[in-house]
Amino acid sequence: MAARLQVSRRQRATPYSERVEALGVSGFSVVNHTILPKGFRKTVAEDYWHLKTHVQLWDVGCQRQVALQGTDAAKLAQLMTPRDLRKARVGQCLYAPMIDAEAKMLNDPIILKLAEDYYWFSIADADMLLWAKGLAAGLGLDLSIDEPDVWPLAVQGPKSDDLVVRVLGEQVRDIGFFKFMVCDFEGHDLVVARTGFSKQGGFEMYPEGFSLGTRLWDALWQAGADFEVSPGCPNLIERIEGGLLSYGNEMTRDDNPLECGLEQYCQLDGSIDYIGRAALQQIAETGPERLIRGLISDAEACPACQHPWPVMHDEQQVGYVTSAIWSPRFERNVALAMLDRGYWEAGLEVRVRSSDGLERNGVISYLPMPD
Amino acid sequence: MAARLQVSRRQRATPYSERVEALGVSGFSVVNHTILPKGFRKTVAEDYWHLKTHVQLWDVGCQRQVALQGTDAAKLAQLMTPRDLRKARVGQCLYAPMIDAEAKMLNDPIILKLAEDYYWFSIADADMLLWAKGLAAGLGLDLSIDEPDVWPLAVQGPKSDDLVVRVLGEQVRDIGFFKFMVCDFEGHDLVVARTGFSKQGGFEMYPEGFSLGTRLWDALWQAGADFEVSPGCPNLIERIEGGLLSYGNEMTRDDNPLECGLEQYCQLDGSIDYIGRAALQQIAETGPERLIRGLISDAEACPACQHPWPVMHDEQQVGYVTSAIWSPRFERNVALAMLDRGYWEAGLEVRVRSSDGLERNGVISYLPMPD
Repeated sequence: MAARLQVSRRQRATPYSERVEALGVSGFSVVNHTILPKGFRKTVAEDYWHLKTHVQLWDVGCQRQVALQGTDAAKLAQLMTPRDLRKARVGQCLYAPMIDAEAKMLNDPIILKLAEDYYWFSIADADMLLWAKGLAAGLGLDLSIDEPDVWPLAVQGPKSDDLVVRVLGEQVRDIGFFKFMVCDFEGHDLVVARTGFSKQGGFEMYPEGFSLGTRLWDALWQAGADFEVSPGCPNLIERIEGGLLSYGNEMTRDDNPLECGLEQYCQLDGSIDYIGRAALQQIAETGPERLIRGLISDAEACPACQHPWPVMHDEQQVGYVTSAIWSPRFERNVALAMLDRGYWEAGLEVRVRSSDGLERNGVISYLPMPD
Repeated sequence: MAARLQVSRRQRATPYSERVEALGVSGFSVVNHTILPKGFRKTVAEDYWHLKTHVQLWDVGCQRQVALQGTDAAKLAQLMTPRDLRKARVGQCLYAPMIDAEAKMLNDPIILKLAEDYYWFSIADADMLLWAKGLAAGLGLDLSIDEPDVWPLAVQGPKSDDLVVRVLGEQVRDIGFFKFMVCDFEGHDLVVARTGFSKQGGFEMYPEGFSLGTRLWDALWQAGADFEVSPGCPNLIERIEGGLLSYGNEMTRDDNPLECGLEQYCQLDGSIDYIGRAALQQIAETGPERLIRGLISDAEACPACQHPWPVMHDEQQVGYVTSAIWSPRFERNVALAMLDRGYWEAGLEVRVRSSDGLERNGVISYLPMPD
């Protein structure tokens, strides 16, 4: 299903929306009340090869920041995630599941620690500002919580460093993985992080103010002509193969972080306090009842997965597919699936009942998928 | 700006999505992670006359319910709104602003009181579930908070009663304004409320379960052929003339309920406790600094308002337009505007700088606009 999207004040355009329109954006999604490009003139497969070879600018202005600042900012940040933030340093980016009191997934932001009392949560699609404000009001915490006028812009692909150097200088080569640096752009502070929703390398930048964002896009675009710079967006083939999960697709409020394979981001020894700890410890005692894995299946290209598709073993449903697409590299369909305990071992043969009425043979895979 | 919308598990289809697609839906918006039809084959003006004359089925499955149930449900419900709920009765629907600790608008749901310890908040576009869960976790309240599998369907227009009677019986004529009744549909309980996002009369129905929703749509559709039943959606002309505000467009977290003209829904005498009371009482002492009004302007049809347009008086900006469209009834443009104190009196002449580069003469109007 696809139809025209109406943009209004409620459905925000970004500093890059006019640019991606001029470059032939073919569709949008909506994330955090903000539009996100979903494709350009190229097919998803052409875009996949381009992303793995060259460099792309991504309009990810929808990655809104929940900014915590003040006396209790560090306390609230820790309460909102099972990830241990005690050793986090200023300049660090931390992928962090957020859970509710029942240990259900609410979001999976990247936390940027800007100062000892200042954090940004760069969020996936849900109003985490309201969760933070609700907790702070209920607990009587002393801090400010707001959404700054920051419009993330990603540069992704193997030529990212060479492109960004031309605009922000050689210093950006020194930014470590999941670290950020405050650079200067046109006299303004610009947070530049070595992060992004692909496995092809690159940066996410956080310009403050609409017009600064547009000027940053233009500077990068003009600097990138001989790198074959292209507009881009999270690529479904690349992110499935890389095992990058999308909140709302692979994981929802029905799932806990152990089911989502995020145990490494969960401090379970009781040494820190966070919302949902008791529930999560209880789940950890017996282990999760299901787990997200990759799934590679035969036959012709599958349709888009708009509702979960049953994964069958013998005549029993043992899980469901949440995202799927044809991979030109595997020349098979690649998918992400939530699988019941006993049916998540790599190599297990299953069958997938997709919405086109076909039943495809498939095999379970670890994530990221093997090269 | 408009382009194709991508639907995925994250961007939910409703029980009615396939029906409205078959009926030629021309565009969607996204509300609460769910798609909302924004137009059909008719122009907005044709749709306006149809809505004022006949009856329409609206896919408003995006109006998600935040369900509070248990010991502290009534307590939390009252904490979340300045509206006095002390005299609310089971079976009543209450339009209720929701505010944060600074008295800023978070949402404007209709609350359905289902039992003394059971409330639904039928919400506009924001994850109020997270606000409720955050408050409850912070305050240590004892209740369950979730989003039930309920998919609202609206019947709007002057022939609504005659249509709904055919499916649910004569009893629905007795449902009072902003009251609801639990009817039987195919052996299932169905909440039917005399509410809706138009001023043309009608009902909102709350089927539980995807397939029950689809069957309810089909039953109403088949019963309505000789009433010229049509698919519809909130009509921008009708809602502006009627003074119906849209959260995210007319009001945001930058605004307080007094600025939004919602003082009648705010208990200010200190006799009840709610989040944001102190801040709201302080604002009420001096009165709001600005107020939402209608605005009727000359000249040719205006474009869609995607960013606020300046409202000028002499050479000074005195407010901004948030929604605007050509009205075939007034044969002028109708708009909603937030206006500074001293510039909100009906009859004041202003000028509007719209995004097409034109400056139109306008006049301030009370809401709803006069017939």
